[in-house]
Amino acid sequence: MSLKLYYASGACSFVPHAALELAGAAFEPAPIKLHRGEQRSPEYLAINPRGQVPVLVDGDEVITQITAIALHLDAKFPQAHLLPASGVARTRALQVLAWMNNTLHPTFTHVFMPNKFTSDEAAQKAVKAHAVESYRGLLQEIEALAAKASPWLGGEHPGVLDAYALTLLRWGGFAGIDPQTLPQTWALVQRFAALPAVAKVIERERLELNVYKP
Amino acid sequence: MSLKLYYASGACSFVPHAALELAGAAFEPAPIKLHRGEQRSPEYLAINPRGQVPVLVDGDEVITQITAIALHLDAKFPQAHLLPASGVARTRALQVLAWMNNTLHPTFTHVFMPNKFTSDEAAQKAVKAHAVESYRGLLQEIEALAAKASPWLGGEHPGVLDAYALTLLRWGGFAGIDPQTLPQTWALVQRFAALPAVAKVIERERLELNVYKP
Repeated sequence: MSLKLYYASGACSFVPHAALELAGAAFEPAPIKLHRGEQRSPEYLAINPRGQVPVLVDGDEVITQITAIALHLDAKFPQAHLLPASGVARTRALQVLAWMNNTLHPTFTHVFMPNKFTSDEAAQKAVKAHAVESYRGLLQEIEALAAKASPWLGGEHPGVLDAYALTLLRWGGFAGIDPQTLPQTWALVQRFAALPAVAKVIERERLELNVYKP
Repeated sequence: MSLKLYYASGACSFVPHAALELAGAAFEPAPIKLHRGEQRSPEYLAINPRGQVPVLVDGDEVITQITAIALHLDAKFPQAHLLPASGVARTRALQVLAWMNNTLHPTFTHVFMPNKFTSDEAAQKAVKAHAVESYRGLLQEIEALAAKASPWLGGEHPGVLDAYALTLLRWGGFAGIDPQTLPQTWALVQRFAALPAVAKVIERERLELNVYKP
């Protein structure tokens, strides 16, 4: 079965992108240029009517949603330990994954695209300013998790939680949050980025890890 | 191992609450009265520092997040088929679960608690009005899924997707959306609510299924 990942540089699609490389999977990387509106092209909307990345195409199956793709890849490549295999460790990891996905991720959307929540420009400014402060607090919660990482967020093996943490910390830079103010997370993210599989993804997406401008 | 579920009447904790009853699990239901602020009591914050429901306590383990609790219960009670067991059906169900949890659920939060996104009252009004329209569109996507349910959203067995759909459609009533304008979803939800296990939860939470006021 062929695997193809539609991703956008620096977007949350980094999570399955890193997961595929960590698993040593053979796949076709298909970049979507958001700044050119390629996610709204008829071709892409035929694949994902929501016009979002990531999309994983596995044979005939089109799969969206980070959580679903992560669990799909985890089932397909169990030897990669993208998530802890079972028991309490797995439940804990799924809890963090869900929280990143339903809390940090949407909070950053308010920073980056406040126009998704209101067409009123003054209200957009208010929403964005509020979201930056919420996001700062949420990254402090990631910092507490990073402080307990042993050595990775999911335990013994690097996996989807580390990839999500990298993405979320990097986005913090766009929100004016210096990653160096979150030293445990920043150290973990740099360590994760240095893994050969992850370095490959960073190079393919042409990512700068620290986008914070003082 | 003892199981205890902290839930609030009508909140998203309905999903694990229904899952536990569908699984025939022995558990202690522990109601948290949000209107009395019990979620911010020192006792509750000691259990969940985020002050949210649901919380599932399994022996010594405190588990938060609908997705993590659903997957935990699915692993613990495989005979209940709370989610499809494997393959494409499972991936599809997890995709819908993640989307309900990271898109519909947070959109409703903008309707119900716009103060979480800005302290500016005019901006809150703008955000709420925008979210009602977004939520209406998202429920139409649920309607398309309900039209294909065979007979349940996850396939052969009633499970967490149906419980989430009930919750999200019910919330729609608070947003001024008449459930009868979503006939496929409304039929599915009524069918689900009539299952003896689910009826027990509805009675315990003292829920009115249709809260829409014309």
